Amino acid sequence: MKKVLIAGATGAMGQKAVALVNSLPDVELTAVLAPHLTADQREQFHLAPSVQIFQELNQVTPGIADIWVDFTIPAAVYTNVNFAIEHHMAPVVGTTGLNDGQEAELIEESKQYQCGGLIAPNFGMSAVLLMKFAKEAAKYFPDVEIIEMHHADKKDAPSGTALSTAKLIDQVRPNHETNPAEVTTLDQVRGGDYHGIKIHSVRLPGYIAHEQVLFGGAGEALTIRQDSFDRQSFMSGVKVALDKVLDLKELVIGLENIL
Amino acid sequence: MKKVLIAGATGAMGQKAVALVNSLPDVELTAVLAPHLTADQREQFHLAPSVQIFQELNQVTPGIADIWVDFTIPAAVYTNVNFAIEHHMAPVVGTTGLNDGQEAELIEESKQYQCGGLIAPNFGMSAVLLMKFAKEAAKYFPDVEIIEMHHADKKDAPSGTALSTAKLIDQVRPNHETNPAEVTTLDQVRGGDYHGIKIHSVRLPGYIAHEQVLFGGAGEALTIRQDSFDRQSFMSGVKVALDKVLDLKELVIGLENIL
Amino acid sequence: MKKVLIAGATGAMGQKAVALVNSLPDVELTAVLAPHLTADQREQFHLAPSVQIFQELNQVTPGIADIWVDFTIPAAVYTNVNFAIEHHMAPVVGTTGLNDGQEAELIEESKQYQCGGLIAPNFGMSAVLLMKFAKEAAKYFPDVEIIEMHHADKKDAPSGTALSTAKLIDQVRPNHETNPAEVTTLDQVRGGDYHGIKIHSVRLPGYIAHEQVLFGGAGEALTIRQDSFDRQSFMSGVKVALDKVLDLKELVIGLENIL
Amino acid sequence: MKKVLIAGATGAMGQKAVALVNSLPDVELTAVLAPHLTADQREQFHLAPSVQIFQELNQVTPGIADIWVDFTIPAAVYTNVNFAIEHHMAPVVGTTGLNDGQEAELIEESKQYQCGGLIAPNFGMSAVLLMKFAKEAAKYFPDVEIIEMHHADKKDAPSGTALSTAKLIDQVRPNHETNPAEVTTLDQVRGGDYHGIKIHSVRLPGYIAHEQVLFGGAGEALTIRQDSFDRQSFMSGVKVALDKVLDLKELVIGLENIL
Repeated sequence: MKKVLIAGATGAMGQKAVALVNSLPDVELTAVLAPHLTADQREQFHLAPSVQIFQELNQVTPGIADIWVDFTIPAAVYTNVNFAIEHHMAPVVGTTGLNDGQEAELIEESKQYQCGGLIAPNFGMSAVLLMKFAKEAAKYFPDVEIIEMHHADKKDAPSGTALSTAKLIDQVRPNHETNPAEVTTLDQVRGGDYHGIKIHSVRLPGYIAHEQVLFGGAGEALTIRQDSFDRQSFMSGVKVALDKVLDLKELVIGLENIL
Repeated sequence: MKKVLIAGATGAMGQKAVALVNSLPDVELTAVLAPHLTADQREQFHLAPSVQIFQELNQVTPGIADIWVDFTIPAAVYTNVNFAIEHHMAPVVGTTGLNDGQEAELIEESKQYQCGGLIAPNFGMSAVLLMKFAKEAAKYFPDVEIIEMHHADKKDAPSGTALSTAKLIDQVRPNHETNPAEVTTLDQVRGGDYHGIKIHSVRLPGYIAHEQVLFGGAGEALTIRQDSFDRQSFMSGVKVALDKVLDLKELVIGLENIL
Repeated sequence: MKKVLIAGATGAMGQKAVALVNSLPDVELTAVLAPHLTADQREQFHLAPSVQIFQELNQVTPGIADIWVDFTIPAAVYTNVNFAIEHHMAPVVGTTGLNDGQEAELIEESKQYQCGGLIAPNFGMSAVLLMKFAKEAAKYFPDVEIIEMHHADKKDAPSGTALSTAKLIDQVRPNHETNPAEVTTLDQVRGGDYHGIKIHSVRLPGYIAHEQVLFGGAGEALTIRQDSFDRQSFMSGVKVALDKVLDLKELVIGLENIL
Repeated sequence: MKKVLIAGATGAMGQKAVALVNSLPDVELTAVLAPHLTADQREQFHLAPSVQIFQELNQVTPGIADIWVDFTIPAAVYTNVNFAIEHHMAPVVGTTGLNDGQEAELIEESKQYQCGGLIAPNFGMSAVLLMKFAKEAAKYFPDVEIIEMHHADKKDAPSGTALSTAKLIDQVRPNHETNPAEVTTLDQVRGGDYHGIKIHSVRLPGYIAHEQVLFGGAGEALTIRQDSFDRQSFMSGVKVALDKVLDLKELVIGLENIL
């Protein structure tokens, strides 16, 4: 039985994580960390009587858990993960806000403490598998374009997943230019260009979060598509992380790297 | 029984038109116009003994046909269509190369001679219906983007069909801007912009000619897609034109306008 | 200014209808009908002080509205619509539960009273346009199959929209059999058959409600797809109905018939 | 420089294979086997003067090639592959017609002779990658359905690729039933069933050969699609096989197993 602490257990994602852990047969929720959470709110947040409640990091009992699930806030995540590693609780981190330097430091520390862990910008299995498969297919199909489609309220383009996918493809794709002599009669119609990989961002109301990777070769095409309808989808990836994190020897970035 | 003359009967499209007319029960091929075509090539080009062969325009017998199908060359098409109208043969024109002024003149002339006719940049029924439906849907869904996908050898972008679709949508779409405050972190990623309608062109080997129109509204999406795999598809539109052209009172531009 | 009464204003759909009417410049909410609704709940249900509240049908003041929007329950809808027509309030009905005989009676009555109206099984504009376009395309493409995809909890198959689409196509499609000599090595793999139109139902978790109509012809394909992500989509159709219902001369079944 | 013999060099696929080998820098065509092929047809079949032409199997010089590419006929393939293995020419086989017993025998023989080789029912990389990815995704998404779409002349359903995909998924997918209580109001609408995996076959003119694998999970979906437009696509897989076959230690079935 793996023991789990959830930091940020009262947030939107944290509550989903509590529900997930409560539903799994081989995992036990032993503690939560959440500022302001009081014992009389146990029922509201679906916390069994056995679950210890901590309001501050320095209260957390070492050894209370094997795994530290973190869905907190950018200001807290570095200190939390640091603490988890030092106390041999394998971190599973969905909180954003760590910069490259902090990630490097935490990886170094995880090696020193021989503590596995996972930091995942995206826990949605469909997005993670899309990225993994796209990277693999690009070895055989160097001609590739990406189309991502999101709701009209999304303010930035391209999406993080689309850009991450392009970067992964770029690592393995042979140098290649698809159509050097092309002429565009409408500016920008060929989309954004990441090292020769075209990216197209669509923004429409009704849409939620969708990404397609299109590969073409002589006489054939391969398309990988993922649709995220609901953040509930993140829990499938957290489940995979809970399964595998204790087998890791150090902190890993990206769920696709532990599949 | 409608009598048909095919100008350009030995070209790639002309040969398909001959095969189409030969296969239809209510249409008869009475003549062809084709430079250099000789009587001993009848069998090669599937022309029955009754079909008259003309090598030059000024040889054509007035009254030899009710309908003039034209799949010739840009240099010939204006003179041909002019001739057809003056001799009361309803033109069905797939040849490109007429400019706006010439089209206007020919329409004027067709009214004067009370001769119906059709000039169609695209005879593929799937593309024509896509444009028609897109124009209709845009009345209810002002948020719309277009994605067209073609083989990597296509040198220009966007495709003619994509641009025509945007123009049709623009005629009916309420003034509208989908996402004014958006920030792009990769140049050009939001695609080309035709009066607020975004167009995205994808170029990949393997692909042939495909277009999607994506509409989004609160809680829903509508997508219309057409795929052209083969120029054989043009004949479905020629068939519709042969059915309807004699009912027209003047020269019409665009197959979608006679459906 | 069109005056509107909403029956069922406290239900899920009724509340959305109130929000819609409150947002439109040329429509005024003058009354609601809702059992148990009391004046102190005005704010909760976004009802202005000027809106009259009726708890029972026989309390409704004749002339209080031009349009009767009905999102009530199967047991109430026939009596409600009957009452609306008799008092010259044009019904816009999203409630299910009317049988064919009742619909016929209400149409007859609407003619007698010269009262327009609309009964719509589906107010989602994307679904309604899909059905309209599919019916139109089938005239040119007799080869057609339907794929509908829904969440895994949907207990019946095919979906109502898919079957309605097949029925509309069947009205106009030439008699046609696509592939009479085919051999299936796995039972049922070719899907359901409605008068020669194949229907395929997909059931998967994550999916919401989606339908595709696929047309094929020589060398080309046309696909119409709609996605319903959220019942919010129904309000786009209610808006169209509010725009057009007062121009109708009798009760019409199906939003597609007033576009 | 790898030396290659092509058996069936004058057939449709064989000619494409010759063109492929002629275009690759690290592979040399040293011989062909083709009944009735004569020296004066060299130019017609793009065979360099150095290429040896054999009309019968027993004429083939041992050691003339490192790799034996076979695009012949069902009646010849077993004897050919047997011969290739015995003479240490690694077979790359696209010919159909070997039964399970013959495959097992040839694998046994290949081990004995320590000769690598590949038998591939499908050399299209998009189809092969689709199968590989589908098998991998099914570990995380047990809810899956397959839709394959082919031209209307295809006489059998489901397609071989669809059935192979289902079999691969079945090897790894946890036991699972998506929607046990469902009610169908139109017979067969839920498609074919392979061990709980639904398969839907669409047959329409215009279409060529397409397959989709649809995965659904809580709040998300993953779709893998491949389109085969032209048999030219097979050559991408033959190229991969030529690259890798000499590294194999025995005869392998399925291109996906050497990626």
